[in-house]
Amino acid sequence: MNQRPDLAAIDQALQDIRGFIHRTPVLTCSTIDQKVGAQLFFKCENFQKSGSFKFRGASHAVLSLNASQASRGVLTHSSGNYAAALALAARNRGIPAYIVMPSDAPAVKQEAVKDYGGEITFCEPTMSAREETAAKIHKRTGANLIHTFNDPRNICGYGTAAFELLEDVPELEVILTPTGGGGLLSGTLIAAKGLKPEIQVMGAEPAGADDAYRSWKAGKRILLEQAHTIADGLRTSLGEETFPIIKELVDAIVLTSEEAIMEAMRLVLERMKIVVEPSAVVPLAVLLEQKVNLAGRKVGIILSGGNVDLEACLSRASHTL
Amino acid sequence: MNQRPDLAAIDQALQDIRGFIHRTPVLTCSTIDQKVGAQLFFKCENFQKSGSFKFRGASHAVLSLNASQASRGVLTHSSGNYAAALALAARNRGIPAYIVMPSDAPAVKQEAVKDYGGEITFCEPTMSAREETAAKIHKRTGANLIHTFNDPRNICGYGTAAFELLEDVPELEVILTPTGGGGLLSGTLIAAKGLKPEIQVMGAEPAGADDAYRSWKAGKRILLEQAHTIADGLRTSLGEETFPIIKELVDAIVLTSEEAIMEAMRLVLERMKIVVEPSAVVPLAVLLEQKVNLAGRKVGIILSGGNVDLEACLSRASHTL
Repeated sequence: MNQRPDLAAIDQALQDIRGFIHRTPVLTCSTIDQKVGAQLFFKCENFQKSGSFKFRGASHAVLSLNASQASRGVLTHSSGNYAAALALAARNRGIPAYIVMPSDAPAVKQEAVKDYGGEITFCEPTMSAREETAAKIHKRTGANLIHTFNDPRNICGYGTAAFELLEDVPELEVILTPTGGGGLLSGTLIAAKGLKPEIQVMGAEPAGADDAYRSWKAGKRILLEQAHTIADGLRTSLGEETFPIIKELVDAIVLTSEEAIMEAMRLVLERMKIVVEPSAVVPLAVLLEQKVNLAGRKVGIILSGGNVDLEACLSRASHTL
Repeated sequence: MNQRPDLAAIDQALQDIRGFIHRTPVLTCSTIDQKVGAQLFFKCENFQKSGSFKFRGASHAVLSLNASQASRGVLTHSSGNYAAALALAARNRGIPAYIVMPSDAPAVKQEAVKDYGGEITFCEPTMSAREETAAKIHKRTGANLIHTFNDPRNICGYGTAAFELLEDVPELEVILTPTGGGGLLSGTLIAAKGLKPEIQVMGAEPAGADDAYRSWKAGKRILLEQAHTIADGLRTSLGEETFPIIKELVDAIVLTSEEAIMEAMRLVLERMKIVVEPSAVVPLAVLLEQKVNLAGRKVGIILSGGNVDLEACLSRASHTL
């Protein structure tokens, strides 16, 4: 399974997971179109099971295991959406999910993992503590360790969102995705450029967590010391598996400000009447700030998820702005 | 136009307005179904143009005018969703909309009316001041005065939501709507019982604004002195046009608490990932509190609108609860 994913693998992944995932709708909003001067098509992964596109990858990873592997369960470390996604995907197959979460993971995310029957082990909120704790659990249980983005099974699963989007709106000229560890962007690049070689695919990233932008400019992976953004899903840096794909295929990485992210949140909440998390609207924020000229173009945006503590988010926003 | 609406009139209304409105989707949520022990089908009028079902009535009322009437424009008094709905419907026909708004109407609703090109006249926040101001404008302009719920053209338009819902989910056994002035409930009763005589239709109302419940119990219209509920769309009392329809056809009016309304808001935001206003979730609140036994039934709920200042609403909620 550790070969680099291609279009055929994503097509196969979609066939494998189709019975487990939602085929999420593509929404449009004339008010937002007028505001940005382009025609936007929003792929609503905030409506995906477990509340984000991560469920596509987690389902694919779990289904990729043979019976003997599956019987030992799955294991990951995550503070966020992947934790819930893997717990639900494991429950669907009737196997254990061991989830290592940093002790500062939001209560709402801990609840989601518990609701889906995942077994949580808490650790110090550092990457080394997460990895050490996961290694211990792996040694004890033999569970299959699955990395949230540095895993071709996940990248294939994530790519199925863009695959569906282009099935529904084949006339798209550009696709923008949020960029954190690069799993969604990698899968989108392979799916979209595979289906339609002339399409442009861009990664959108908060200026306060600009490792992908810097890495793309430098041609080598640059890790961030610290990230400063409300887009909590995008604080991670690109991975060893995702950077080479992005370096080879991406048309641009574009940055946006915290102010634009909050404006985009409000627009989507108030005008589209749907709940999204800050990470999901980073591509729209890029367009609001006109950080790239897409006037008159048909643009797909992957709204990556909707798991947000709205009260905290809106109250933080009003203090920030 | 002042005859009592029937199914044929609602059918005709839907044909008339179809090109102007969104056919809103019907969403389901397995988590909420499990929680209430019934199978719920949410008709998403929060996605309707102008953000509420009111646009169905306003569009129908505007289209019902002949050319000579239309040339004088339309006029209403409203602090909320009908103001924006009528302004947009009038703009679609290229005629003036005169909107009387109480001076304490939320800024976001004032903005919506302005965005749609409506001409706002402010007045003191009392019903008599609203009516006097509207009468003056009528005298000056000759504009067609349209009452938000005491008008058969609106009642017919509002009934088209249930008509579509039953087209999409004919197996429904019960429909619940929020109840304020009774326009939505009246239209729903006529449409649903006309299409499917054995269906049950119930009105859901906040206990803090229980005029419809009291009126239904007493068999005569009882007006409220004051309403105490976060469901701002339901603070009005039943009208002269709507009460007789409700009295004759409704199966029950059921009450719910403010706590249940806020719990329902949170469930819909967090689980369905859609933005709704407090009034819209009052039927779900009734089911959460088990104020009526619908175990195992197929229940339609009209999510009436999504125009809400989420920040204020959530902050008020955390102070209340």
